[in-house]
Amino acid sequence: MKQFTQFESRDLGQELIDLGLEYKFNPRLDIQKGQGKRIGCIFLNPSLRTRVSTQIAAQNLGMEAIVLNMDKEGWALEMQDGAIMNKGTVEHIKDAAGVLGSFFDVLAVRAFPTLTQKQEDLSDFVINQFIKYAGIPVVSLESAIRHPLQSLADMITMQEYQVENRRPKVVLTWAPHIKAIPHAVANSFAEWSLGMGYDLTITHPEGYELDESFTKGATLEYDQSKALEDADFVYVKNWSSFQDYGKIHSTDPSWMLTQKHLESAPNAKVMHCLPVRRNLELSDEILDSDRSLVQVQAKNRIFAAQAVLSKIIE
Amino acid sequence: MKQFTQFESRDLGQELIDLGLEYKFNPRLDIQKGQGKRIGCIFLNPSLRTRVSTQIAAQNLGMEAIVLNMDKEGWALEMQDGAIMNKGTVEHIKDAAGVLGSFFDVLAVRAFPTLTQKQEDLSDFVINQFIKYAGIPVVSLESAIRHPLQSLADMITMQEYQVENRRPKVVLTWAPHIKAIPHAVANSFAEWSLGMGYDLTITHPEGYELDESFTKGATLEYDQSKALEDADFVYVKNWSSFQDYGKIHSTDPSWMLTQKHLESAPNAKVMHCLPVRRNLELSDEILDSDRSLVQVQAKNRIFAAQAVLSKIIE
Amino acid sequence: MKQFTQFESRDLGQELIDLGLEYKFNPRLDIQKGQGKRIGCIFLNPSLRTRVSTQIAAQNLGMEAIVLNMDKEGWALEMQDGAIMNKGTVEHIKDAAGVLGSFFDVLAVRAFPTLTQKQEDLSDFVINQFIKYAGIPVVSLESAIRHPLQSLADMITMQEYQVENRRPKVVLTWAPHIKAIPHAVANSFAEWSLGMGYDLTITHPEGYELDESFTKGATLEYDQSKALEDADFVYVKNWSSFQDYGKIHSTDPSWMLTQKHLESAPNAKVMHCLPVRRNLELSDEILDSDRSLVQVQAKNRIFAAQAVLSKIIE
Repeated sequence: MKQFTQFESRDLGQELIDLGLEYKFNPRLDIQKGQGKRIGCIFLNPSLRTRVSTQIAAQNLGMEAIVLNMDKEGWALEMQDGAIMNKGTVEHIKDAAGVLGSFFDVLAVRAFPTLTQKQEDLSDFVINQFIKYAGIPVVSLESAIRHPLQSLADMITMQEYQVENRRPKVVLTWAPHIKAIPHAVANSFAEWSLGMGYDLTITHPEGYELDESFTKGATLEYDQSKALEDADFVYVKNWSSFQDYGKIHSTDPSWMLTQKHLESAPNAKVMHCLPVRRNLELSDEILDSDRSLVQVQAKNRIFAAQAVLSKIIE
Repeated sequence: MKQFTQFESRDLGQELIDLGLEYKFNPRLDIQKGQGKRIGCIFLNPSLRTRVSTQIAAQNLGMEAIVLNMDKEGWALEMQDGAIMNKGTVEHIKDAAGVLGSFFDVLAVRAFPTLTQKQEDLSDFVINQFIKYAGIPVVSLESAIRHPLQSLADMITMQEYQVENRRPKVVLTWAPHIKAIPHAVANSFAEWSLGMGYDLTITHPEGYELDESFTKGATLEYDQSKALEDADFVYVKNWSSFQDYGKIHSTDPSWMLTQKHLESAPNAKVMHCLPVRRNLELSDEILDSDRSLVQVQAKNRIFAAQAVLSKIIE
Repeated sequence: MKQFTQFESRDLGQELIDLGLEYKFNPRLDIQKGQGKRIGCIFLNPSLRTRVSTQIAAQNLGMEAIVLNMDKEGWALEMQDGAIMNKGTVEHIKDAAGVLGSFFDVLAVRAFPTLTQKQEDLSDFVINQFIKYAGIPVVSLESAIRHPLQSLADMITMQEYQVENRRPKVVLTWAPHIKAIPHAVANSFAEWSLGMGYDLTITHPEGYELDESFTKGATLEYDQSKALEDADFVYVKNWSSFQDYGKIHSTDPSWMLTQKHLESAPNAKVMHCLPVRRNLELSDEILDSDRSLVQVQAKNRIFAAQAVLSKIIE
């Protein structure tokens, strides 16, 4: 495996899920595997779970991890090829990624979208510039349009909580938020759920349609209550408009998931990638109930990252 | 030991002091003890000594330490249960502490007081929310009202420099400052000194009385020169008003400790937790003299933390 | 070796270059040498290469490295002896350096100049205060007037790419920039090049003369095209005026090095310490060509630091 930035195939997905679960039960199984290998974790944006789980995953493999908050401890990177750098950017991605590529064995990068430059975001410009110039394997810690380590952790979680003897119904439901939120988690969750063969329904207010390249094969249902019927897994997530790029069209509080919404889905487990805005996206009553898998998902971030790093360094 | 957030008993205090001194003379004595254990150090506020000494203490025990500057590398945490999170806070302490608790074996947390919400501060709200939701041992790296690792380092220092054949006189003297400073260090020093059986006198201008729940058993003396007579250890510290909560009533420069103040205490050693504002809280002549124990205290921060972590992981 | 802050002698320089090259071919040659040793890396300013390469160098020697962004994770340090600290500074360098000196075996410090207080900068005030009060070996990660680890990496690079059978001609050429840039890299490059016996020519617009104490022995040539003739190594760097301290006199774009400038130096290799402002200091065509050694220099930062740390801890 050279990069880990998106869903590749059901076979590879299953292999990573199984390896992640193996590590969950024996975190230091491969403590010798990464000896002498070094990962650089480059953050252009804030992080809690991703930052810590990636470091722990590396430590569990015996790797040395170095974290660089490029936005705070470094400086602004120029991303445009051919730019005349007489403004605010201090170093070109070409040079910075080249150097980091020569310092490390693996580079892990977090680079959020602008939510204003749609074409640039859609090309996953920043992480692809890192890949282009680093010359070593790159792991996405969430890019402009995907968050594959989150989705792998989500797939591990759904396998752990799978229902017996039938194909589970998975629902991705939009939730209200006060800020314009990227599409990465929703995109990746759709990409991985569909890729792994789940029956996926997506529900949201009109105008919040996701990029079809991620959702092809899913059922779109604007009626949230209908979408939630008999759901096994309900993934709650806000995202801003994709068509009217980066804009907030609705904050309709009736879309916030509560126990009442789940009356027609008595067995539904509820998922969220965290951080979650309580009582805005999701009610306390759900998050604090047995339905909630959010802490399981978070814990599985370690083993998702560990499975990916393990494959990359072998 | 499940938590380390305050003074518990003279027996435990003595055990920690003795263990700290053992580590001082042989820092890597228990280098195997923490193998495979992991501590998360969560800072909601700046730190130098605490940050570095805790990492070193962990390393000396063979533990893996990961530092997270939650305020800078992460985001604002919501602390209020039941909050509707439609404002500035991004993640609820319930969720963040739960995740961190599932990632680490021990959590160490720094959370300063607001100095505006007295009841909230007095309940030591933030660190108690971490304890409530993390589900693993929590070590205070200074909370709203206590700084127990500092006090343990101070007790180690006083034992190292103890006077022979009599109970030493300990004086906690208020010092001027230009900013509103928390009560944590003063509270904890009183709590630990009294708990460990020292003869403690507290002196400060009227209006600077500390919370009595920490100072019961101490002698209060408003006349600084009288308080300092025959002192063996003089602990210098500023704090803001407790009654008129978080306010500055006096910056009277005559309260700044100088050699002249110690004429009636010829053997007095002078202590301060650092950082110290020179020539505002304490004069250069004292800090640069043999009287000063401030560097010894700082060095002992490593061994205080090491003793505490050692007890917690056993 | 007690400190590493400047060029000391040709013998020591050669020893460090040779050791650096040895580590380049076998990075973990001395992985046992630093076991149980601890380095504190104190940043008062941003950093990418220096930050990461120093940590890697320490890891390659088996040392434990702790990074402290004093400017962001800590607080403002008072540098003036005898100051009455009733303003913005929170801790005196005396106390902070003393504590750090008691926590670590080696201290590495980055402290940029003010570019406004010329005499203070020229005395290399901040790093010398660290040296004065830390009481342990101090390694400069770039001070007000020198960047010796960069220069050592540059010397390693020039030895790797040395021309056969003759003394190479080295040219340090000023480049345009939009910000006032310190003299440290230029000073150190001159100091080390001359100290290691290279034939050095310095070229820049009038008014950009460097401090003569670093450039004595070099040829000064205001005509850039004449200076570049038959150059073997061209080191490109901006600096602000030294005489009219910290000011920008020229941003003349004709000084930006392009392939055209090198027509009379067909074999010239081009160097820069990075970060480089592309198409302002140096053209893309050069940076992306075989002439460029900037990535080699950056990689060699690891081995320069490793050689220095190796000498310091022995």
